[in-house]
Amino acid sequence: MNPSTSALLTDLYQLTMLQAYLDREMNEEAVFEFFLRRLPPNRQFLIAAGLEQVLTFLCDLHVTSEELSWLEQTGRFSPGLLRYLETLRFTGDVDAMPEGTLFFPNEPILRVAAPIPLAQLVETRIMNLLNFQTMIASKAARSVLVAEGKPIIDFGLRRAHGAEAGLLAARSSYLAGFAGTATVLAGMQYGIPIYGTMAHSFVQAHKDEVAAFEHFAHAQPDNVVLLIDTYDTEAAAHRVVALAPELKKKGILVKGVRLDSGDLADHARKVRRILDEGGFREAQILASGNLDEYRLQVLVASGAPIDSFAVGTAMTTSADAPSLDCAYKLQEYAGRPCRKRSEGKATWPGRKQVYRRLAATGLLAQDIVTTAGDVQEGEPLLQSMMKAGRRLAPSPPLQEIRDHLTAHLAQLPDHLKRLEAGAPYEVRISQALQALAGRVDQCL
Amino acid sequence: MNPSTSALLTDLYQLTMLQAYLDREMNEEAVFEFFLRRLPPNRQFLIAAGLEQVLTFLCDLHVTSEELSWLEQTGRFSPGLLRYLETLRFTGDVDAMPEGTLFFPNEPILRVAAPIPLAQLVETRIMNLLNFQTMIASKAARSVLVAEGKPIIDFGLRRAHGAEAGLLAARSSYLAGFAGTATVLAGMQYGIPIYGTMAHSFVQAHKDEVAAFEHFAHAQPDNVVLLIDTYDTEAAAHRVVALAPELKKKGILVKGVRLDSGDLADHARKVRRILDEGGFREAQILASGNLDEYRLQVLVASGAPIDSFAVGTAMTTSADAPSLDCAYKLQEYAGRPCRKRSEGKATWPGRKQVYRRLAATGLLAQDIVTTAGDVQEGEPLLQSMMKAGRRLAPSPPLQEIRDHLTAHLAQLPDHLKRLEAGAPYEVRISQALQALAGRVDQCL
Repeated sequence: MNPSTSALLTDLYQLTMLQAYLDREMNEEAVFEFFLRRLPPNRQFLIAAGLEQVLTFLCDLHVTSEELSWLEQTGRFSPGLLRYLETLRFTGDVDAMPEGTLFFPNEPILRVAAPIPLAQLVETRIMNLLNFQTMIASKAARSVLVAEGKPIIDFGLRRAHGAEAGLLAARSSYLAGFAGTATVLAGMQYGIPIYGTMAHSFVQAHKDEVAAFEHFAHAQPDNVVLLIDTYDTEAAAHRVVALAPELKKKGILVKGVRLDSGDLADHARKVRRILDEGGFREAQILASGNLDEYRLQVLVASGAPIDSFAVGTAMTTSADAPSLDCAYKLQEYAGRPCRKRSEGKATWPGRKQVYRRLAATGLLAQDIVTTAGDVQEGEPLLQSMMKAGRRLAPSPPLQEIRDHLTAHLAQLPDHLKRLEAGAPYEVRISQALQALAGRVDQCL
Repeated sequence: MNPSTSALLTDLYQLTMLQAYLDREMNEEAVFEFFLRRLPPNRQFLIAAGLEQVLTFLCDLHVTSEELSWLEQTGRFSPGLLRYLETLRFTGDVDAMPEGTLFFPNEPILRVAAPIPLAQLVETRIMNLLNFQTMIASKAARSVLVAEGKPIIDFGLRRAHGAEAGLLAARSSYLAGFAGTATVLAGMQYGIPIYGTMAHSFVQAHKDEVAAFEHFAHAQPDNVVLLIDTYDTEAAAHRVVALAPELKKKGILVKGVRLDSGDLADHARKVRRILDEGGFREAQILASGNLDEYRLQVLVASGAPIDSFAVGTAMTTSADAPSLDCAYKLQEYAGRPCRKRSEGKATWPGRKQVYRRLAATGLLAQDIVTTAGDVQEGEPLLQSMMKAGRRLAPSPPLQEIRDHLTAHLAQLPDHLKRLEAGAPYEVRISQALQALAGRVDQCL
């Protein structure tokens, strides 16, 4: 059983509501939108990600016979619901911002329009996919901004929250500008460049470090990055300096060393000096160990001679903001706009579009959220992605998403690139949308 | 492709090291142990979870022909490695604490003994599974302790980090004492009781709340819990009071109401009064909305008339501690104990056993970590689970794990049940283990 593709990876209430809708033949078109209510702490922008997996999920949506039998034997569901699920297919429309688009709170990044039983049923998995990937891509983009061009690699699988989190974190951080990942399956599944060195256990399993380094270099002659902090970092750097010329004679080039503990800036400086004084200026230094965008910024600002970074747990779990305040809300039913008014959770009604205006400098000036029919100055960000259950275009290659994101990050004014939140970017609610909200409130 | 069962769901360095081990025919037995270096903030104990998925992973370990072809076409791996992977099976031994066991830092909860290429290869997925489930079970047990017997339900799938995280969070929180989950697939896959009510969108899609409530009650006559905060909580409670007798005449019993926003304690008191004054004393109140163990404690202490709770995002992401400082470390190779001495990451060498001593009161007194051969007073916590790649016993039913955990939680002294960390529980390192560490340091 592959949980990632099961239609039963959903909340029970989706099925109980579905049954109720079917009972009364409530089958009119419902419009749901996915958006964020507010930014996580210390965030100034977000990056839309996860659309590809949402579209795949919708295209493949079905209930297997095994799932149907199980649902039936629970005794909780009506024959009408089981018949409906037996031939379940997604037949709705999807509009969305392309992956890699910069966005802000109150801006829908995805809209589903479908008969209400269907549009409701897919809520849980759509949120599950968009929440996670958007959260990771947004954090990864922050790291890329502070790393000032130095490559960053995802090392997070071991503490990712399960299998899919590890894979999708590799994907989302790569689309946000990471150089690659250590996760082999992400290489196979998404074509992401894969990177890897060695573990401390490899060094420990040998009688001494030199033996381990030599052995590894012979086994991986094209990819010799040596982990030097198992016992004493600087002593190991001296060993690398002594070993590198020997290996060179045999045609094996040591690419560099990896630091994984202690004061990384201090070790990097000492190790750089040892390598340089040993005539091994071309060796690169890769640093890892509890890194995140805050530490990257400090390390880069310190001028520590680190050439590339590997980040793991903090990125893969989005440790400082492990969820988004996101929602998938009903905005229209049977042609009638609606809104939720629960305390602290009120939403703007109806189908919406987001327009982005740039300043003469090419930098972001203002976004406007308006009703889908209303035309505003600027670029509309939501595009039609699926009609009547069919995708309108094939999946864009990850490289295209990376380029799209790079272009968007270049539009960020400097103050929005900072890791700490300052004055928020202006997202205006149009008069048309405000007027609609007023009318909706009056009818209730 | 099901990522949860792929052998390529691993770090690239596992494959590069594997190739190096094969090159030199380094195939002696390696012993790795999984343990935590320290407790997460505000934690006083941990609950072992995830062993079932680790054993299943090891039993099923293999590389598919599709994976092999992909590895081959990358051009990175030797024919020897590819041949090894083609017939890959796990043939090692596993000792572990049963799931649901209470444990503390520096205590191994799992030991793998296998030829080094194999013991190393499985590191990433073992960590991925044990880190996540142990983290969730530990946090869920805290919630169960403060809820003082009130049922708690997992509502977290939508913001879980992907598919597997949602499923495994349902499993881990259930084994820690939750009453059930909203995740349908967790019901099918693990037999966990499933719960669900209705969404705000259901109310919004009807012309008014009464129509929505009536409709839902007819569609789900055995499970009528009505969500009353879409517009005005207390007004909706009055509607429920008026509606319930009408439904009762038709044989439909309203079980209760759900609050999902605002000041939950205040709304619960007002709604309870409205229900009671309306003669509807048997109606239960379920509360949800940004709950975690800290808020549960406050709500329970306030005496708010809430009968059960649903917790979501904070639990499923372990928001206040979204990873564990865990490690899977080489402790012995070819009969020779070893240890890592990297700064701040030093470990105790060799195969270990943990003994637990109880006081005369039946409460925890002291744990002792010692060498696997050394016998101490108390109960040994690690048991043999797998020999030569075969499980020694079938999977215990989840109910048995829940009972094991309940017995362990009953051994916690009151001060260790608190949500904030106080004086840590005593975990002693035996003289035998200290002596071994001394000998290991001398040889290096």
